[in-house]
Amino acid sequence: MDVTKFKHHYSIRVRNYEIDWQGILHNGNYLLYFEVARVNYFKSIGISIDERLINGIIKIVVVRNEIDYYNSATFDDELTIYTRTAKIGNSSIICEGIMINEKTKMPVAKNVNTMVWLDPRTNTSMTVPEDFRDHVRKFEGSDCDMQTPTIEV
Amino acid sequence: MDVTKFKHHYSIRVRNYEIDWQGILHNGNYLLYFEVARVNYFKSIGISIDERLINGIIKIVVVRNEIDYYNSATFDDELTIYTRTAKIGNSSIICEGIMINEKTKMPVAKNVNTMVWLDPRTNTSMTVPEDFRDHVRKFEGSDCDMQTPTIEV
Amino acid sequence: MDVTKFKHHYSIRVRNYEIDWQGILHNGNYLLYFEVARVNYFKSIGISIDERLINGIIKIVVVRNEIDYYNSATFDDELTIYTRTAKIGNSSIICEGIMINEKTKMPVAKNVNTMVWLDPRTNTSMTVPEDFRDHVRKFEGSDCDMQTPTIEV
Amino acid sequence: MDVTKFKHHYSIRVRNYEIDWQGILHNGNYLLYFEVARVNYFKSIGISIDERLINGIIKIVVVRNEIDYYNSATFDDELTIYTRTAKIGNSSIICEGIMINEKTKMPVAKNVNTMVWLDPRTNTSMTVPEDFRDHVRKFEGSDCDMQTPTIEV
Repeated sequence: MDVTKFKHHYSIRVRNYEIDWQGILHNGNYLLYFEVARVNYFKSIGISIDERLINGIIKIVVVRNEIDYYNSATFDDELTIYTRTAKIGNSSIICEGIMINEKTKMPVAKNVNTMVWLDPRTNTSMTVPEDFRDHVRKFEGSDCDMQTPTIEV
Repeated sequence: MDVTKFKHHYSIRVRNYEIDWQGILHNGNYLLYFEVARVNYFKSIGISIDERLINGIIKIVVVRNEIDYYNSATFDDELTIYTRTAKIGNSSIICEGIMINEKTKMPVAKNVNTMVWLDPRTNTSMTVPEDFRDHVRKFEGSDCDMQTPTIEV
Repeated sequence: MDVTKFKHHYSIRVRNYEIDWQGILHNGNYLLYFEVARVNYFKSIGISIDERLINGIIKIVVVRNEIDYYNSATFDDELTIYTRTAKIGNSSIICEGIMINEKTKMPVAKNVNTMVWLDPRTNTSMTVPEDFRDHVRKFEGSDCDMQTPTIEV
Repeated sequence: MDVTKFKHHYSIRVRNYEIDWQGILHNGNYLLYFEVARVNYFKSIGISIDERLINGIIKIVVVRNEIDYYNSATFDDELTIYTRTAKIGNSSIICEGIMINEKTKMPVAKNVNTMVWLDPRTNTSMTVPEDFRDHVRKFEGSDCDMQTPTIEV
């Protein structure tokens, strides 16, 4: 699985209580892992979304998740999760994640996650804030931003 | 959202510890809810998969999940989850789920879940067992089964 | 196990994803179950704590939990949780919970939970609000309240 | 809080989805954190209990948990958990855990956990295996083992 486009990675070790009755990482935990990595990704590029989310100053909701599961993981496996922003639209952002098992170097899962900014007062979608766009553009390049202004020459 | 094709539903009440720092049901719980409903769906059509899964006699793994989130849910909301089998392939099965908020009657989320049967000895895909097909065909009709034998006349 | 002092009960069915690699309900879920039952207990006696907690108007924190595990539970078991307030002190409340397996009628676990009211502005303990005391006294009798005023004759 | 008796520690960073509607680490996660640290403690002293647990060769169940909560933790806090074996009885073992917030150096919580060995065939308690005792004695010293043979001179 090609991770060359990804500049951020985060490691998670599978915990005992996340193992299910089949002896493998329960499928519900993958979304949580991808989210933990994504939150860390945003933090690492200068976007701290936690306090403003808790206080209701900004409101970002997940509107779609796709997960493909390639190989199971089990207790104590170290998983590296690669995260990147694939696209910023008007009011939405699409992030991709790839999970690799460090022991086997095999892909474990892939995630495509779409989030939408909501106006906290009206609960309707709003334009992705400019400072957020800036941080992502600086890290990922401007290709991912559908609203990147055309530079006139 | 059209639930007329769905013959099974299951109710879940949102628990306090499932509410996140934004005051809404955390997105990771939706997959768990859909799964709880799906396990109940299989049980209700005569397929008890629990003990054979625990003992490793059968091995069924999730290979893909899609979730669309339409409206957030919050503490104590009663959610009705409609589940059906959309398709049985050679070694895979696709289930659909729709979640409705009983208070607002609004759709909350939709799930498309693909599972694959693995041979427990080789971990390679195997044909969906005939008794499993039978139970699903009886409940859903034979349209969903790609291997339903053509009835010759 | 004697549940005669308990006037409230709540039922929970064990979900598949709560089963651990030993094939039994993971020990971490018991606390969650007792809490779900306790939140329902408070709701049923007229105390709705959810919105005020989310909005930070009141702040109640758990300061101690004891759990004794008597018998394991497994998938699809129906557990009945009995909850009562054992004692209201100046700024704290002690609740007891007993969990019974409906299939075997055997006790599964027991919980003693202590919570403390905090002043949201200072994060220091404050007196349990009078309206809260009233609701509990009405349901449990005044024996549990260490501050119940002596009725003079 | 005195951690001088503890020779093992393990770090956990609080994840976003573990934060509750009050904006703090939900009380149910503490038990999970203490367990993750304890499993790592056993691994680090040479006791790998995972596969034998999954395969049902050994059966160890939690019979009691006590948690005292001293200070709340929140998103992204780094918590260090100190773990030690306090006592090995005939068929039981008592472990202690102390959780410290690395940012504030304040104690967050304390756990006393009692586990019992069960004979997998009969589900009745059995003597703690000698190889397990040996590993613990070597790491903790023989004081913790109630069955440490008196060395005759």
